[in-house]
Amino acid sequence: MRTLAANGVTVCFMNPGTSEMRFVAALDEIPEVRGVLCLFEGVCAGAADGYARMTGRSGCALFHLGPGLANGLANLHNARKARSPVIALVGEHTTSHLKFDAPLSADIAAFARTVSDSVQNVASCGELAQAMARTIADASRLPGQVAAIIIPADVSWSAVPGEIPLVAAPVRAMPEESRIGAAADLALRPGTWILMGGTALNPRALRSAAAIEQRTGARVAIARNVSKIASGRGLFQPPQVPYFPEKALEFFAGAENLILVESEIPVSFFGYPEMPGRMIPECCEAFHLARRDEDGTGALEALTERCGALEDEVRISDPASAAMRASGALTLDDIGIALAAMLPEHAIVSEEAVSSAALLLKHLRRAAPFEWMPVTGGSIGQGLPVALGAAIACPDRKVIALEGDGSGMYTAQALWTMARENLDVLTIIIANRRYAILDIEMRRAGVSEIGPRADAMIDISRPEVQWTSIARGMGVDAARAETVEDFQKQLRAALKERGPKLIEAVI
Amino acid sequence: MRTLAANGVTVCFMNPGTSEMRFVAALDEIPEVRGVLCLFEGVCAGAADGYARMTGRSGCALFHLGPGLANGLANLHNARKARSPVIALVGEHTTSHLKFDAPLSADIAAFARTVSDSVQNVASCGELAQAMARTIADASRLPGQVAAIIIPADVSWSAVPGEIPLVAAPVRAMPEESRIGAAADLALRPGTWILMGGTALNPRALRSAAAIEQRTGARVAIARNVSKIASGRGLFQPPQVPYFPEKALEFFAGAENLILVESEIPVSFFGYPEMPGRMIPECCEAFHLARRDEDGTGALEALTERCGALEDEVRISDPASAAMRASGALTLDDIGIALAAMLPEHAIVSEEAVSSAALLLKHLRRAAPFEWMPVTGGSIGQGLPVALGAAIACPDRKVIALEGDGSGMYTAQALWTMARENLDVLTIIIANRRYAILDIEMRRAGVSEIGPRADAMIDISRPEVQWTSIARGMGVDAARAETVEDFQKQLRAALKERGPKLIEAVI
Repeated sequence: MRTLAANGVTVCFMNPGTSEMRFVAALDEIPEVRGVLCLFEGVCAGAADGYARMTGRSGCALFHLGPGLANGLANLHNARKARSPVIALVGEHTTSHLKFDAPLSADIAAFARTVSDSVQNVASCGELAQAMARTIADASRLPGQVAAIIIPADVSWSAVPGEIPLVAAPVRAMPEESRIGAAADLALRPGTWILMGGTALNPRALRSAAAIEQRTGARVAIARNVSKIASGRGLFQPPQVPYFPEKALEFFAGAENLILVESEIPVSFFGYPEMPGRMIPECCEAFHLARRDEDGTGALEALTERCGALEDEVRISDPASAAMRASGALTLDDIGIALAAMLPEHAIVSEEAVSSAALLLKHLRRAAPFEWMPVTGGSIGQGLPVALGAAIACPDRKVIALEGDGSGMYTAQALWTMARENLDVLTIIIANRRYAILDIEMRRAGVSEIGPRADAMIDISRPEVQWTSIARGMGVDAARAETVEDFQKQLRAALKERGPKLIEAVI
Repeated sequence: MRTLAANGVTVCFMNPGTSEMRFVAALDEIPEVRGVLCLFEGVCAGAADGYARMTGRSGCALFHLGPGLANGLANLHNARKARSPVIALVGEHTTSHLKFDAPLSADIAAFARTVSDSVQNVASCGELAQAMARTIADASRLPGQVAAIIIPADVSWSAVPGEIPLVAAPVRAMPEESRIGAAADLALRPGTWILMGGTALNPRALRSAAAIEQRTGARVAIARNVSKIASGRGLFQPPQVPYFPEKALEFFAGAENLILVESEIPVSFFGYPEMPGRMIPECCEAFHLARRDEDGTGALEALTERCGALEDEVRISDPASAAMRASGALTLDDIGIALAAMLPEHAIVSEEAVSSAALLLKHLRRAAPFEWMPVTGGSIGQGLPVALGAAIACPDRKVIALEGDGSGMYTAQALWTMARENLDVLTIIIANRRYAILDIEMRRAGVSEIGPRADAMIDISRPEVQWTSIARGMGVDAARAETVEDFQKQLRAALKERGPKLIEAVI
């Protein structure tokens, strides 16, 4: 734990068990590390991801043996796809107990390797500090990854000799000059797109991209699978690559060159009959201005200069504002319009609204500047834990979780930790009482009519989840909105106060 | 799905996604298979386990890609340790999509191998039916295991040629005569114990064991890690091996021979400083009367005969009944005494009460005959899903889930499916507002005093989870009991009615 603290890892999201008791006891000796208790490991893993996304430093989560880690894997998968640096500390049986088939015995390394190429098995206390340092280094190795360390209980309870190792923070390298030059040539050609991803979705990089677009005519787009995006009024807000491959191919129609900035060639979420998975035209060539582990922001600034583009001359035309309706049954549009009008500046939005996401985000383009954390690995149950982690990372900023009622049920336990830590998170559950995305996906898979028994596997209205009850059950104040006026009133009230709140927005 | 139906796999617990849409659509064509929707895959996996434990047939669960399976792994681990036959159907991307790093792309087989030695990757629709048949056979291969099959979406949406393969159900073999004879010799020696496990904890096997004990003086015990145990009045109820190794070693003091019946040498749950993991004396020899895949019940009956023991002469002395207190603050004893008095005959008890378990089960020895499903793999979050699966398997029997408030929060989504399917499950949450077992485990790990920051990782009282709210939020009627009279009244009322109920028993 001292090695973690000395290297700036100062928060650990945890749900410990017997094998981790000495680690937990050490919290009282090492005040630099803050333990945050979560009631399920999926919450720990997602919170570590959200914390890493907002701080740029490693998130850290503690798991109890193989099955504890197993419960965290889905959100570790999401963290991996977000390229978030996340340290997974996993307790193991005592070394002498490994030979037995005890109830909790399992191949922890096999669990860990499903989400990580970096898995350290600590065999003795002599090597613990160095193994921890390697894990810290591996997590933050660019562009960021999940790194796991497996620590037997007897190693935890033994005195660890030696110095506390320090790990150098990695620095993103600038791409070589020749790539800047080549990109400048490409940008001037017709049919060139610039696809921004990774850490390059910050205001600086976006301003550079805007200048390049206005100067060269190259069109800028945002990748889907990124950890966070600066958005809102006054910012350059390029379109995001569409979700469905038909739309994406239409979007990239005529593209001949794709300049990649900390991104990769976009592929569709799923494969479909008679549809390519690569979502750019076949003849389109991809060129890496900056790879995922390089400095995309610096590269875009250099490219701006090389193109003779002038950031001072960038004109951002904000989308026209939309008027809030005064009353009526609540719709997604009403939610989006109200949010856009009321979102506080520098808010953090954790978005996992699935079928409702596109429309909400369209409206949010009119909001005051905010940061938006999208879905990355597509494993639902990301939104609330990531919001939790972001709130721990940024206690002075309002966090909004835009959450589907289906995905929210995966890791609703996050609400409890929001209450316990009095985090400034407003959760908005978009309650359509359905895995609505599957209505679309069912048809896309070639099913022309959804029969009643299949429909029952998509319909979550029987019974309707009462999110207000669930939230209150975990100590979070909650309200339900079924009309425009209710939603506006509740949103206004929630944004005025600090602390955890939930609005169940029934559409 | 036709192969599943033809082989008696007629229930599938599921949370499907895009890749499984054609499988879901097939529910309308193949009415023999019932889809049961769960709001989280950990519930699906545990329900398949509970279903398998009660029917002896394979439980089946459907998962969406690697991360969906990941969410089920902890309860698949528990199923594996219970030796429950469970089929894990996992949807995969279309074959043409596998080459891409799509958001949900992951090594599904690697996830599956953490809990299963049987992982079928289906490469084409021509091999689907045979691969499914192999999976069905592997799951039910004695003594039962988790078997996974990974089915790409394009295989799901293609027409599958050929006949529907049928799989022969395996039959447990009787151990050879020489082992019966050897066990009979051992049973007569002083210092011999018989350890019963696996499927041998049924009334027939228990009666045989009672006769052997009374005839030979060999002492009978029950293994901890078993799938279900027939218990209650009129049944032979041997003691269970204690949880902590000191107690277990005391329990087996003087043991020289251990006759194993579908069980293994007991090992402790965890390793502790200066404590052996094997919980029998060093000099004690183990002898397998029946291995885990053999017929332990038949072996005990043969042993009874060989020993000249007479089942008709078995005298069972039931524990003396205990009087219910009329009033007062609720204690664990009050809960156990009331349950013992009111438990309906043939009830099924899913027990995951952790630190409260031993005392409750002691009282339940006085209850009307029931079946008890204990914790197996030790990964918390088993109790409610297993109760759900048992209720689907046995719709005519009352199911009681005895659940800790810590462990219950892992897979509380099970309550929603209990409401949706109107299952006759009474959930009793033992609310001590603490991971109380860790108080003990912390001290056992050598921590003499629990500091305030460590204590905060064990204390789940801030905020107190309002289980009544959580249950109502998922459509389950609920009540809180803080006094003896409340608990008795609520228990009586709940047992009179059919359908899902929850009592939050605050101790």
